[in-house]
Amino acid sequence: MNKAEVVKLILKDRPTNTKLESATAFAPTNIALIKYWGKRDCAINLPVTDSLSIALANKGATTKISLIDQAEDEYWVNEQLMAADSAFSTRLNAFLNLFRFQRYHFKVETKINIPIAAGLASSACGFAAVVKALNELFAWQLSDAELSILSRMGSGSASRSIWQGFVHWQAGIREDGMDSHGIALKATWPQLCVGLAIFNSAKKSIGSTEAMNRTVATSKLYSAWPQQVSNELAAIKSAIANHDFNALGMISEHNALSMHATMLSAWPPILYAQPETLSMMNLIWQLRDQGLPIYFTQDAGPNLKLLFEEKASDEIRLQFPNVEIIRPFTC
Amino acid sequence: MNKAEVVKLILKDRPTNTKLESATAFAPTNIALIKYWGKRDCAINLPVTDSLSIALANKGATTKISLIDQAEDEYWVNEQLMAADSAFSTRLNAFLNLFRFQRYHFKVETKINIPIAAGLASSACGFAAVVKALNELFAWQLSDAELSILSRMGSGSASRSIWQGFVHWQAGIREDGMDSHGIALKATWPQLCVGLAIFNSAKKSIGSTEAMNRTVATSKLYSAWPQQVSNELAAIKSAIANHDFNALGMISEHNALSMHATMLSAWPPILYAQPETLSMMNLIWQLRDQGLPIYFTQDAGPNLKLLFEEKASDEIRLQFPNVEIIRPFTC
Repeated sequence: MNKAEVVKLILKDRPTNTKLESATAFAPTNIALIKYWGKRDCAINLPVTDSLSIALANKGATTKISLIDQAEDEYWVNEQLMAADSAFSTRLNAFLNLFRFQRYHFKVETKINIPIAAGLASSACGFAAVVKALNELFAWQLSDAELSILSRMGSGSASRSIWQGFVHWQAGIREDGMDSHGIALKATWPQLCVGLAIFNSAKKSIGSTEAMNRTVATSKLYSAWPQQVSNELAAIKSAIANHDFNALGMISEHNALSMHATMLSAWPPILYAQPETLSMMNLIWQLRDQGLPIYFTQDAGPNLKLLFEEKASDEIRLQFPNVEIIRPFTC
Repeated sequence: MNKAEVVKLILKDRPTNTKLESATAFAPTNIALIKYWGKRDCAINLPVTDSLSIALANKGATTKISLIDQAEDEYWVNEQLMAADSAFSTRLNAFLNLFRFQRYHFKVETKINIPIAAGLASSACGFAAVVKALNELFAWQLSDAELSILSRMGSGSASRSIWQGFVHWQAGIREDGMDSHGIALKATWPQLCVGLAIFNSAKKSIGSTEAMNRTVATSKLYSAWPQQVSNELAAIKSAIANHDFNALGMISEHNALSMHATMLSAWPPILYAQPETLSMMNLIWQLRDQGLPIYFTQDAGPNLKLLFEEKASDEIRLQFPNVEIIRPFTC
């Protein structure tokens, strides 16, 4: 199965032309609390395990797609034209090749309010916003699950960026991946906060796809990862249902550190932490020992995302003056 | 089985009194290239897996034990009297309780030329030197394997500190642990160097026994560790036999990072790395990318031990001016 075949399956009775000139959509970025780490099918981004995320409200990508009468696409990010030979353009171009139909070319204008490629799921919200904009542009009227599957063709974690709130991406078992898409959880948690501790917004040195493929290929410890995820997924769903913050925080932090452990045991080793990452972890652990209910998660980058509840936010602001606080359920 | 029973088995036909007043012995510290991480029997320090180390020549403990006519033992380290209620005294006292026979009391004077409890196997050489000194004091004439088993009663890794050079500690399968002792490898490797990069000689925040017990109890990834060790042990023995430095370095670094990965995936997480540790790892990886054959290993502490060959030593001295270079086979 390849991406073009998946797209064909999803769009089989849908229009491939349009009277609109452009369409715009927003998709939130998402932070995985139970990580997506390892692909069972690299061609169409099928994961080894389920994962579970929380969307970051108004943090994400707002993308306008216009049909243009030119020989090449044009990609703009935050009002900057992307070079045609950049990694960004190459990747987006390959994705849009799946949707050219009447030999269309596209102008894509994205506004993204988080650092790009620094472990903040910029590609997740980026591809989800493109798919949602295409859905508007061609009036496909796809279901959320279908939008999720198409987004997965751009980036695995984009399959979770279709919704706000908690999203469970089920790995599925089908070869064509039609059962591998996000499912929104009904639960809300108004007190829950996510703190973005961005001390380094440089592009990461190794992309997450390469990192996860190398981990699966070379880490012996990775063999125990799928079972861990399975246990933690069940436990975090229960923590969410019960608003048990300490359970949610513990499971999330343990899961994130275990993912980074699989990378540390890959060869060559992969280490996203930087000296500042360790200093911040030590401070978090120290504050927690002193009774402050605060946990963290870390993705494929050096930055940490803090997890806490509203009642701790004054203390968090004091201890981490540069942290941006997101309230996923109250904005 | 407890420690007293093991000691009784080993010493069953040996003298329990002596005409000597004192005896002195030296034991080298050792650095594991394939780590000992996890106990199959905590009471008598039986490991889950085999391990393999290299002794650090004249770095270690020189210990004089004297019989004294006092109500309590006296312990001196580098000419400082240890407080009776210190962790050091408590642990050594418990060990010496196994050897009091005619109600002896001991004065123990140790000179140790490495930082204590900073991940440099100070307890390994410390207990091995005590056992070797007792063997002299009582004229037991024990075999090296028996000395290794007695040393293991003090600290697991002490079982490897009886010899210079490469030592393979086999886990064994017996409940009484009589097959769990070091075996010296015949191989030498005159070009091989170990660099001690000691930027932090403070006592570690969590002892290695507690760290390994917590890892075995809470890390899901640990389940894959024994198989990894088994594969790497066979591979490093072949690298040693062939003087294949890149293989030795790669296996050692991979094994060490994988051990630290199991700790990162424990709960609460255990992280011995400090910001300086990461900075040095990054420098090592950068130099290796540039063609310098250098690898590292890391034990239960923040410091790194560099692995390289003599021909790289000028460049190592330039890049790491504070590193102390040990030549395990040429001093």
